[in-house]
Amino acid sequence: MNRIPFNMMKDIIERAFIRAGLDHDKAAVCARIHTESSCDGIYSHGLNRVARFIDYLQRGWVNPQAQPVAIKQLGAINQYDGQRGVGITNALFAVEQAAHLARKNGVGIVTLRNTTHWMRGGTYGWQAVDQGLAAICWTNTESCMPAWGGMNPRLGNNPFVMAIPGAQPLVLDMAMSQYSYGQLQVTRLKGEQMPFPAGYDQQGNITLEPGPVEASMRIMPAGYWKGSSMAIVLDAMAAMLSAGLTTGEIDRVEQGSGTGASQVFMLFDPQQLGGADFTQRLTEDVERYVTTSKPAEGVERVFYPGEQQLLRRRQNRELGIPVDDDIWTQVVALAGD
Amino acid sequence: MNRIPFNMMKDIIERAFIRAGLDHDKAAVCARIHTESSCDGIYSHGLNRVARFIDYLQRGWVNPQAQPVAIKQLGAINQYDGQRGVGITNALFAVEQAAHLARKNGVGIVTLRNTTHWMRGGTYGWQAVDQGLAAICWTNTESCMPAWGGMNPRLGNNPFVMAIPGAQPLVLDMAMSQYSYGQLQVTRLKGEQMPFPAGYDQQGNITLEPGPVEASMRIMPAGYWKGSSMAIVLDAMAAMLSAGLTTGEIDRVEQGSGTGASQVFMLFDPQQLGGADFTQRLTEDVERYVTTSKPAEGVERVFYPGEQQLLRRRQNRELGIPVDDDIWTQVVALAGD
Repeated sequence: MNRIPFNMMKDIIERAFIRAGLDHDKAAVCARIHTESSCDGIYSHGLNRVARFIDYLQRGWVNPQAQPVAIKQLGAINQYDGQRGVGITNALFAVEQAAHLARKNGVGIVTLRNTTHWMRGGTYGWQAVDQGLAAICWTNTESCMPAWGGMNPRLGNNPFVMAIPGAQPLVLDMAMSQYSYGQLQVTRLKGEQMPFPAGYDQQGNITLEPGPVEASMRIMPAGYWKGSSMAIVLDAMAAMLSAGLTTGEIDRVEQGSGTGASQVFMLFDPQQLGGADFTQRLTEDVERYVTTSKPAEGVERVFYPGEQQLLRRRQNRELGIPVDDDIWTQVVALAGD
Repeated sequence: MNRIPFNMMKDIIERAFIRAGLDHDKAAVCARIHTESSCDGIYSHGLNRVARFIDYLQRGWVNPQAQPVAIKQLGAINQYDGQRGVGITNALFAVEQAAHLARKNGVGIVTLRNTTHWMRGGTYGWQAVDQGLAAICWTNTESCMPAWGGMNPRLGNNPFVMAIPGAQPLVLDMAMSQYSYGQLQVTRLKGEQMPFPAGYDQQGNITLEPGPVEASMRIMPAGYWKGSSMAIVLDAMAAMLSAGLTTGEIDRVEQGSGTGASQVFMLFDPQQLGGADFTQRLTEDVERYVTTSKPAEGVERVFYPGEQQLLRRRQNRELGIPVDDDIWTQVVALAGD
């Protein structure tokens, strides 16, 4: 395992994206976002996702030229069609439009239908808090998880993001499965078990073993029936608000993960609600209350949502971003070096 | 166990509330809501909660005369102070205001600070879908659950509601703990175990046994770290949007469950988004996709969120609402009979 400096990683990814057909502006933005995801420790949606995104471009599943097109503008909620353009730039566009509305009205909601994979959901929460705004965002996806009581995948893991600004912001980025397939794979390759039930094996038994769950595709919803139910209503609400596709309909698109998805971006301006100082104090108050919990057996201290990413970010900015050597070599080759 | 007809239960509760100091209008509304909760099978927040609400009135923790007061009106998001009035009528007022805004703007958000226990969260989701609107609502609460990695209660169970209208609506009503203390108690009294980890015993071991978890107050967040993180951001976002109190501040109020809470009511009008027919079709599509899952071992069929409440409602409307005889006798006595 090597560590690669932030700017070097960004430059290599940018060249790979330009070579794959993105224009310079989109390539620069997407390279920054993929690098930031790896820098925050979300390797699966950072450097490790570059080759797959390029594959989608080459198959024509993502249209590098497309821009979002306005469908309906109601003032506080505006709907766009993402035209199956680049998921990251579509989503960043939606955040910026929603931010503009929020600064005017206190709240701004932008929805995207017919977009593509937004990569790491947390990106859009950080994008909001970095400009002093709060956000609630989510996407639906193709199915990858059975409903509670079911055997075959019928639910997306539908990542859900909530972010509240502060000197140290609160950022939640949560998929509806207890573990991702990526986490199962990493743990299986290490020859280890998951600490909590990962799903069902092919005999229908709940198991901590990642391999049998990867084989059955019966990953466990977070909170059992609770994550299952939340995935269902997030799907319906995203499709309703964006006049877009549901998970069942996305399953019929069959153009890779996330293609055709429906997304929601709600932004809020604390300046116009309780005020920025009030929000700063309440964010600190929530963080202090949580982090001063009496630690459980064997736990050093309790973290608030987003804190560990911020710590990882600082460390990786200083020391370089850890990479899997094979993946790094592959992306360098995609950049034409 | 007897079954009591809907209207008889409602009348008895109404008389108990009038005797406890509610005016006739508020008593009628609150009696209907408590009865509907029991009728839908949410007994803990229906008939079974009547005596405790009356106790709060008598202690002066809930002000029966107070009405919500407007704090800030931004047009798409309006903030009110609940004045520690009756939680149910405050919340219904907020839903109606938000519905009015949503019919005008596509979306309407109303927040309440300084309110009291709204009883069953699902009430407000059903209130929205019954008029063809979608809703996202949540409340923060006093702490009753440790943060992930902590030992002492620092998080509210912060119920979260999402509802999408349709011929058969989708309604999620989900607290952030895997089980409620009420469910632990009922299971303990039956001498049974919970099917999934209920929390930690006083030695710090994860257990299925309800009794030791009630003793340690270390109930398990739904999805382990996921429910914990979501409870934290729901708290901060509710306080931010309502300019209200956080869970840590509510803990210092010490006037019973829910007193001083911050609540959010977001309503959406499908007519102005994809249209009512589109929403009807997508709700059916989501329900069909989920309910036609291949059932897992030992499962008869898969349900969508809200379906079982609707089935229970129909059954209890026909046969009468099952009651615990002691609790029924107590409420009849409170009604002065």
